[in-house]
Amino acid sequence: MQLFYTPDITPNVSEYFLSEEESKHAIRVLRLEVGSEVTLIDGKGGLYKAEIKDAHPKRTILQINSVTTDYNKRNHYLHIAIAPTKNLDRIEWFLEKATEIGIDEISLIITQRSERKEAKVERLDKIITSAIKQSIKAYHPVLNAPVSFTQFIKTNIDGQKFIAHCIEDEKVSLAQSIEKNGRYLILIGPEGDFSPAEVDAALQSGYKAITLGESRLRTETAALEACFEANFLNR
Amino acid sequence: MQLFYTPDITPNVSEYFLSEEESKHAIRVLRLEVGSEVTLIDGKGGLYKAEIKDAHPKRTILQINSVTTDYNKRNHYLHIAIAPTKNLDRIEWFLEKATEIGIDEISLIITQRSERKEAKVERLDKIITSAIKQSIKAYHPVLNAPVSFTQFIKTNIDGQKFIAHCIEDEKVSLAQSIEKNGRYLILIGPEGDFSPAEVDAALQSGYKAITLGESRLRTETAALEACFEANFLNR
Repeated sequence: MQLFYTPDITPNVSEYFLSEEESKHAIRVLRLEVGSEVTLIDGKGGLYKAEIKDAHPKRTILQINSVTTDYNKRNHYLHIAIAPTKNLDRIEWFLEKATEIGIDEISLIITQRSERKEAKVERLDKIITSAIKQSIKAYHPVLNAPVSFTQFIKTNIDGQKFIAHCIEDEKVSLAQSIEKNGRYLILIGPEGDFSPAEVDAALQSGYKAITLGESRLRTETAALEACFEANFLNR
Repeated sequence: MQLFYTPDITPNVSEYFLSEEESKHAIRVLRLEVGSEVTLIDGKGGLYKAEIKDAHPKRTILQINSVTTDYNKRNHYLHIAIAPTKNLDRIEWFLEKATEIGIDEISLIITQRSERKEAKVERLDKIITSAIKQSIKAYHPVLNAPVSFTQFIKTNIDGQKFIAHCIEDEKVSLAQSIEKNGRYLILIGPEGDFSPAEVDAALQSGYKAITLGESRLRTETAALEACFEANFLNR
């Protein structure tokens, strides 16, 4: 089944024109013909079953046969804020895997010990898009541009707020602390961890310190572990 | 702290000679000197605290100061059998991540729909080794050379046996079915899944069909999800 990501489609349409790029891909590369069935996802929960009405290589016309809204809507909201890794591949695979397993929002935070101070959101967002297509998710996780840790923890966020750090301290596990079907924000530090000052600042801003188990995990593995736990605890 | 993987060390020694390669690395690259403290792991649960006695660039002598056996011994045994992915990077990161999170044995299986029929075990084993060093694990997961699925499911294995597949069928979750502190073997299929015949054969050999949740996961993500779940359920 061919799947296209069409963020600009609206639930009430009976026809949809694929972009020139998607049209070319559909007709020239995938060799779809009139009558071929395709699926569209809008990234906002809408999943559309459609078929090709005009196999135009630049302006393919689709006839929409059915629409499902809130397709596989999640029962909780997971937001992970992570310091981009020095090696960008690692954050890229985290985004791919988190999208497959289930995540709603990702924020990139620049911390005191971050070696990498920037990250190209467009490129990273493309990875999320191909992951939702691959795993047929109708919701496109939101990716926020990098902001400083200090700025980030000042922003108003509702739901439960957690910080995962490695400093010896009193910590709880997500299993002990998350409320089912809730909204969660989890902070994941850089290689070399958050600084003690950052941890204090987070605790003072109402974040709860959590442990992700006994293993010493890389930044991206810790983030994926948190993602896995939050989803698993909401099964 | 500098860490070396020294599989040939034995718990009763008071001295240890680093290999020529490790000696060169320790002295020429890391610039360690007499008295510098290092940690050794033997891959069988032994963790050694040592210091440099003779900083010889080809034959560094270490003095062993303390030995811990069964270092962070796991309370369960997890064996995952997975079909190598077409793109080897994906199996490589699975090995790295599973080692960080916790795994004891990995078998590579060639299934009916496997596009990749081989995998270089030496290279993959090196990835496991660097992951145990990075996450300070004293046990080195065992990696078995590729065998055919048919041959593999004939081998005698004690503990609970599971197969994760995508065919609509009666399935349980690991949460419902694993016995804590047990031995588990979990089969993960290739891109394109196990064939119905393979699933039947596994069920007839005493494997239980499991689901890893509602998301459609790539081979390596499914394997990591299984690894997460088995470890999480043994916390």
